[in-house]
Amino acid sequence: MIVSVFMGVSLDGFIAREDGSLDFLDFFSDPGEDYGYKDFMESVDCLLMGRLTYEKVCSFGSWPYEKPVYVYSNGTINIAEDLSQKVFQVNGMPKEVINKFSNMGFNRIYLDGGITISNFLKENLVDDITLTRLPYLLGKGIPLFRDWIGESKLKLISNKEYSSGLLQSVYQFEKKEKY
Amino acid sequence: MIVSVFMGVSLDGFIAREDGSLDFLDFFSDPGEDYGYKDFMESVDCLLMGRLTYEKVCSFGSWPYEKPVYVYSNGTINIAEDLSQKVFQVNGMPKEVINKFSNMGFNRIYLDGGITISNFLKENLVDDITLTRLPYLLGKGIPLFRDWIGESKLKLISNKEYSSGLLQSVYQFEKKEKY
Repeated sequence: MIVSVFMGVSLDGFIAREDGSLDFLDFFSDPGEDYGYKDFMESVDCLLMGRLTYEKVCSFGSWPYEKPVYVYSNGTINIAEDLSQKVFQVNGMPKEVINKFSNMGFNRIYLDGGITISNFLKENLVDDITLTRLPYLLGKGIPLFRDWIGESKLKLISNKEYSSGLLQSVYQFEKKEKY
Repeated sequence: MIVSVFMGVSLDGFIAREDGSLDFLDFFSDPGEDYGYKDFMESVDCLLMGRLTYEKVCSFGSWPYEKPVYVYSNGTINIAEDLSQKVFQVNGMPKEVINKFSNMGFNRIYLDGGITISNFLKENLVDDITLTRLPYLLGKGIPLFRDWIGESKLKLISNKEYSSGLLQSVYQFEKKEKY
């Protein structure tokens, strides 16, 4: 099973403002261009995100995902009744969660949310990361890479330049063990 | 006059380890490939760097620069006698330094050193930045973008992929005023 990250990031490494807002992404919206999002979404079986990201998505008003969403939280989360067939809670250690998904027959999962990504990176449980680098300095915000996630060499798989100035690079991690 | 930054940076945004060491750059050395360094050096009239970077360069043993080097420090720096025709000290506010260089007839200067770059970015005194992104996560170190340098949109000028996995992107800043 493959664990993938797909993330827009400012030139200085932030995925959102300090309050979680993503308004700066709109500066680079390009009608008819989804920056590979649809293709990526079709390639995954489910999403796994942290509680904060889940709450952010809930605040959008309408639920944007077709695929099942697993919210990673060891606390209690509120799932609205109309989402009860689309949103599920998982808990446990990152590796246990990955094993659970693997046993459920998933081939690829989309890992989202800054804290959750960090927790899985620390455990060497991420296979690839698609970084879409915006030509924008935010100055401060929520960083993609935080704390001590260890040192690792990656392999650049592809690199694509968009006319809006965005650069999308796919990196593959070396995995120390398979699950 | 153009102020340019030319910098290698890890995937997580660090230009050096916490102790200033750059050993991880060696993981990507490629005989015969200088990642555009010589061409860039030929395009500049001088270097402007902070004291810490100057001291780091001094520790290399042999002096690597042909072009004049200006060390930006409002304190006292030690310049060895054999460097007295190659290394000079400048002080004052960033804008005063830029004006001084402009009056000296320089067309392009190479701005180096994390703290110095930040100080000039804060004053909107940088014209372009060549970022060579390494496919490597350091986890911690000296960040390129630090503190609050303000929010700004940049223009992607070029993007080049190297077989070693390095991505070199040139970004141009919008300047609010000319000097």
